[in-house]
Amino acid sequence: MSDYTVVGKSLPRVDGIEKATGTARYGADISLPGMLWGRFVRSPHPHARIKRIDTRKAEKIPGVRAILTHKSLSADQALSSEDTVHAMKSSQGLFASDKVRYQGEKIAVVAATDPDIADDAVEAIQVEYEILPGVNDVLEAIKEGAPHIFEDKPPITAPDGRTLHNICNESHNAFGDVDQAFREADIILEDTYNIPRVHQTYMEPHAVVADVDGQGNVTVWTCTQGIFAIRSGVASSLGIPISKVNVIGMTIGGGFGAKFGMLVHPYAVLLSQKTRRPVKIVMDRHEEFVDGRPAPGCWIWLKTGAKKDGTILARQAISYWNTGTTSGASLGQTSRIRGVYKIPNIKYDAYGVYTNEPGPAAYRAPGAPQVTFASEAQIDRLAEAVGMDPVELRLKNMAEDGDAVAGGRPLSHVAFKETLTAVADKVGWKNRKKGKNRGWGVAVGEWTNGAGPAGAYVSIHEDGSVKVFSGLMDITGTDTAMAQITAEVLGMPFDKVGVIRGDTNSAPYTTGSGGSVVTFSVGNAVKRAAEDARHRVLEIAAHQLEARPEDLLLADGKVSVKGGGKDSLTLAEVAQASLSTTGGPIVGKGAFAREPSHTVISAQIAEVEVDPGTGAVKLLRLVGALDCGTAINPVQVTGQMEGGAVQGASWGLMEESKYSPQRGNLNPHLLDYQIPTALDIPTLESVLVEKPSAHGPFGVKGVGEPPITPTLAAIANAVYDAVGVRVNDMPLTPERVLLALKAKRNGGNGHTGK
Amino acid sequence: MSDYTVVGKSLPRVDGIEKATGTARYGADISLPGMLWGRFVRSPHPHARIKRIDTRKAEKIPGVRAILTHKSLSADQALSSEDTVHAMKSSQGLFASDKVRYQGEKIAVVAATDPDIADDAVEAIQVEYEILPGVNDVLEAIKEGAPHIFEDKPPITAPDGRTLHNICNESHNAFGDVDQAFREADIILEDTYNIPRVHQTYMEPHAVVADVDGQGNVTVWTCTQGIFAIRSGVASSLGIPISKVNVIGMTIGGGFGAKFGMLVHPYAVLLSQKTRRPVKIVMDRHEEFVDGRPAPGCWIWLKTGAKKDGTILARQAISYWNTGTTSGASLGQTSRIRGVYKIPNIKYDAYGVYTNEPGPAAYRAPGAPQVTFASEAQIDRLAEAVGMDPVELRLKNMAEDGDAVAGGRPLSHVAFKETLTAVADKVGWKNRKKGKNRGWGVAVGEWTNGAGPAGAYVSIHEDGSVKVFSGLMDITGTDTAMAQITAEVLGMPFDKVGVIRGDTNSAPYTTGSGGSVVTFSVGNAVKRAAEDARHRVLEIAAHQLEARPEDLLLADGKVSVKGGGKDSLTLAEVAQASLSTTGGPIVGKGAFAREPSHTVISAQIAEVEVDPGTGAVKLLRLVGALDCGTAINPVQVTGQMEGGAVQGASWGLMEESKYSPQRGNLNPHLLDYQIPTALDIPTLESVLVEKPSAHGPFGVKGVGEPPITPTLAAIANAVYDAVGVRVNDMPLTPERVLLALKAKRNGGNGHTGK
Repeated sequence: MSDYTVVGKSLPRVDGIEKATGTARYGADISLPGMLWGRFVRSPHPHARIKRIDTRKAEKIPGVRAILTHKSLSADQALSSEDTVHAMKSSQGLFASDKVRYQGEKIAVVAATDPDIADDAVEAIQVEYEILPGVNDVLEAIKEGAPHIFEDKPPITAPDGRTLHNICNESHNAFGDVDQAFREADIILEDTYNIPRVHQTYMEPHAVVADVDGQGNVTVWTCTQGIFAIRSGVASSLGIPISKVNVIGMTIGGGFGAKFGMLVHPYAVLLSQKTRRPVKIVMDRHEEFVDGRPAPGCWIWLKTGAKKDGTILARQAISYWNTGTTSGASLGQTSRIRGVYKIPNIKYDAYGVYTNEPGPAAYRAPGAPQVTFASEAQIDRLAEAVGMDPVELRLKNMAEDGDAVAGGRPLSHVAFKETLTAVADKVGWKNRKKGKNRGWGVAVGEWTNGAGPAGAYVSIHEDGSVKVFSGLMDITGTDTAMAQITAEVLGMPFDKVGVIRGDTNSAPYTTGSGGSVVTFSVGNAVKRAAEDARHRVLEIAAHQLEARPEDLLLADGKVSVKGGGKDSLTLAEVAQASLSTTGGPIVGKGAFAREPSHTVISAQIAEVEVDPGTGAVKLLRLVGALDCGTAINPVQVTGQMEGGAVQGASWGLMEESKYSPQRGNLNPHLLDYQIPTALDIPTLESVLVEKPSAHGPFGVKGVGEPPITPTLAAIANAVYDAVGVRVNDMPLTPERVLLALKAKRNGGNGHTGK
Repeated sequence: MSDYTVVGKSLPRVDGIEKATGTARYGADISLPGMLWGRFVRSPHPHARIKRIDTRKAEKIPGVRAILTHKSLSADQALSSEDTVHAMKSSQGLFASDKVRYQGEKIAVVAATDPDIADDAVEAIQVEYEILPGVNDVLEAIKEGAPHIFEDKPPITAPDGRTLHNICNESHNAFGDVDQAFREADIILEDTYNIPRVHQTYMEPHAVVADVDGQGNVTVWTCTQGIFAIRSGVASSLGIPISKVNVIGMTIGGGFGAKFGMLVHPYAVLLSQKTRRPVKIVMDRHEEFVDGRPAPGCWIWLKTGAKKDGTILARQAISYWNTGTTSGASLGQTSRIRGVYKIPNIKYDAYGVYTNEPGPAAYRAPGAPQVTFASEAQIDRLAEAVGMDPVELRLKNMAEDGDAVAGGRPLSHVAFKETLTAVADKVGWKNRKKGKNRGWGVAVGEWTNGAGPAGAYVSIHEDGSVKVFSGLMDITGTDTAMAQITAEVLGMPFDKVGVIRGDTNSAPYTTGSGGSVVTFSVGNAVKRAAEDARHRVLEIAAHQLEARPEDLLLADGKVSVKGGGKDSLTLAEVAQASLSTTGGPIVGKGAFAREPSHTVISAQIAEVEVDPGTGAVKLLRLVGALDCGTAINPVQVTGQMEGGAVQGASWGLMEESKYSPQRGNLNPHLLDYQIPTALDIPTLESVLVEKPSAHGPFGVKGVGEPPITPTLAAIANAVYDAVGVRVNDMPLTPERVLLALKAKRNGGNGHTGK
């Protein structure tokens, strides 16, 4: 398959045994002498004015060491001698001040000597509210008369002249001339789609321990996707220089984009500053649901114009993203209506809409599953409308290397058609059989991995073992990839490479683990560091073997002369020799920040069976193909494909955070918030399409995000194929499917959607 | 004084506040969940055969989790599946097996859930001994009929034909022809000198916590002078690959050479392997005295031949070093009879002699104070014999750059004469006044710093702060020197440099902190790393400022164009810019192992007053000059000079471990083992002579060791000057001085010595 020795092999994860045997240490495992426990007072109401906060009773409980509120914090900071203005400004937004805008919003935090005492104190704090009407539906929130989440935010006038309320932010973009294109179109389709807010549902809730010493140096132990992001977040939110903050990343129990945030960190630091003791905060599952930062829900109107032969001419969208109380929704992702297709005319207007819900954040391919669902469901309708096979229609419109897609650079190193063809071939698409109440759906999604700044060090030790050192947080097996890259470069056994995670004080800057950037970016830094070390190895060996470095071969942990005699040196011998050279021990450094990357396509085909009596959708088969560039570790790439597909299937079939304007989150527990078990998911099938990238290490492309993007549409398209109803409100719960079936029997067109 | 901005300034120590405020974490501060405590069963007898060890009673004590003896260890290892032979061989010597050879020797170790239970178990272990006669005096130990410490070690025949018993090792060397030179000499002096064993008396006793996980990975937290030495020591003593051992160095409370050793580490690891729990062992002061690894005592016969004009022709010595039960004495240091002088003919025969005492180890300039005392005391006698001023005699014989000293390379970059002249000028030697019972003594000593392998990383962060990362253990303020070197190279404020200590998993190999190597060797590695980072800074800034890197000036934390306009970039701006370059974040690496270094001289002058009624010697003044190359931080160099001088004065005036063949160590407590208080030491005066070295960073020379070397002789010479007695047995206790005064009054020549 490849010329590589270690790269391309499905080697076992370097962290496998410690995770399987329970010796890995997570954020909540940290316990320090004298440590206090932090707990939050949270609003029970989605929207209310705070009349009064009374902490006096709580303060008297023995063991309570500190209680912080917006008011106490401002008072404390006013008393501090320096940077008062900056610190006060920094701490804005840590606690609700005049009113609460979502259920679960933080009003106070308590530190006590044990968690039960902290809970007692939370209960003892009295908060008086004046309840306000709330809003959750974006279509309601934008209307005149809707409750205003932020009173000082005036309504906006949209480009189409409408007055929109509760708008947080907006994004408008156009390429080509959609109006003219729609006029030229033979077929025009218009639909609305609604995708709910979902929680990332990582296994491990947010956890932090903070310790502030007498000089104000802050140490933070936490589960995070990016220790440097937490460092700068703590520093900027509290007005502390970053050089005084050290963040120690613990083993992380899932993140999916949500573990970049500062949900608990500044509070633990503030409590430790106040009490001069270490403070631990671990969120529980209820808190995760009411005050997590989930994927935003999205309502989208989508219009597609095409010729009779299936050539897509134009697409236009208006999207309203439920951005809760912050600007966290990735509304710009509305641009994904372009997909992987040559569509010359594109226009969209996207809005982030305030609601009485917590602000959203990143979730695996942020914004892409929502838009891709709309995009690929409507492509399926188009195939039907023009009478083409859905795979054929997609292949017809797909871009290739050299094509300049709307708003983007000309494509290179893409494998759109190969990947779709690969998944179609895998299921035998052309000869597929359709059982009763069964159907097939196809969809594609895409993601272009970003790049992030990363440094890495590689050192070679006296026994020939190697350590790779960086600030990388492994959430998906990337440490294993780093070991493989290092072993490949140094021509040495994989199991003699140790991958060591540093803290922000010791490690070079390393980008966070998100956006499918790690194997691409940190991998490049590690490869450069290994190459730097390799250079020294050959230099020393050349001296010892009396040869030129370029005549040496480094393989199997030995340096020998190419085509030479049996003289050779082990890596251990070279490392030992280095200790008495003027150049010293063998250390390599590597750093990287950016090079262009390429769009990766994920193509999936689902087969479902629908129970017409109950509306229940059973996923029978889910097959994916992914252009992964070079797979450093194929089984890990497959793991990403399966993980993304399961999350997409969950969003498509069962997962949904439900809110009420009066009661807030209606299903803030895993009993009511459904995610699939192993029984809900068939054995997944994955096909790797390896089209190497130009700049990834050994041709790597980012693979973490793409697999979640097409699944919602693939399943919805399969349900339509099975029973002839298009359900445009996700997820495809039995209730929705049954209602759609009933509507169809009652003469509807089988389409739903607000 | 210098052209440097940060180098050469007496800046405050980077670790000053944490040490002064008690927040620094030492080895004994580590406490882990489920941790056990280890305690040793030690021999109460200096020499005895072990008849029986009965651990049964101790095993039954609740809370006792493991008891290891030589026998149990061998049995355990015989049961283990692999590497049995190797492991058994590795563990040899951890515990006494058939007999004990010194009081305090380890017989067993216990791990229990708390230290009191461990103590109870130690008491409950019954050991039956057959007591053997012991020996402590090296002159007794070498004789026919002396107890043999190691029965299988046969007597040796010395070059002079004598049969010597209990000889551990020997070193013989000759340059020129001493016999011929002595025939040509006008004056020949012969004396014997005896210098006692002294303990390094660091404030913090040895401490370790070891934790072994299910995969056999070993983590060791400890106070040590060298984490990589402990790593290789643990690995080799227990047959574990070094890649499975991680050593975390804690803040260290003094070492002086003694904290390289493995006094506690393998035991804690073995107990953790056995119990699967973390195990802590902290030695108490008594254990430090009976089972520490002190500086060896030494008996030396020294003969000097000179011309009437004071020209020294030849020196010869025979030395017996009390090496206890190991080969730890640095007998080769007998070569220091050469001193800093042009002596063409040198011969010595040195022997390590086994006694019933623990093996010695390094103590600041290992072996040098002992030999230098003999050497410089006899030089003083020579000055008197030829009627020359002792300073003049030394200057007359001193070597200079270009002189090839016996057995050495031609000297370069030395400042012998300048340094002696500097200290003489400082006290006004030529016009010194002598009070009643008061006297002046001068002596010089020397040390040539070694070099050690070291790697270092330097990273520049977004706020312009810099982190220096290595495996360096700071025992003398070296972290501060590293910060100064880095700030100098990067043209940035000293207080924005953080010096971070890594463990052996994360840090590049870094030499241990001993032998005056650190500022020279690690300093070079850090300088190279900072230069590497600087190169990247200029590269990025050149691009941004549209200039050539060589036209840029890096100063005051800013990069600007030389002679150019007001355009400039802060280091923070350059670091931020780096995050979006293909080259990535700014990381520098540096490594170093060896380059030639130069002999450093320490010259001291003491003024004393002797009470003729009690023999008490009062140190009135102690003035030192030191060639320190370039002083990176003058006040820290002064600190080294003062520290060494105090330790030398202590050895010369009061300090001595006393042993009895029957009872072992007679003064194993700080109540009986005298070291000076502030009241015993006058204000010390220090003169820095800065003759830069060729290869040290910015001209650094190693300064840790030299200041202890001449002090014993300076004080002894001053006592002679005061009251006319030469006491050749150290230390100059009132008892010894009084006996010498009495002997002189009874017609002796005022010289003592066995």
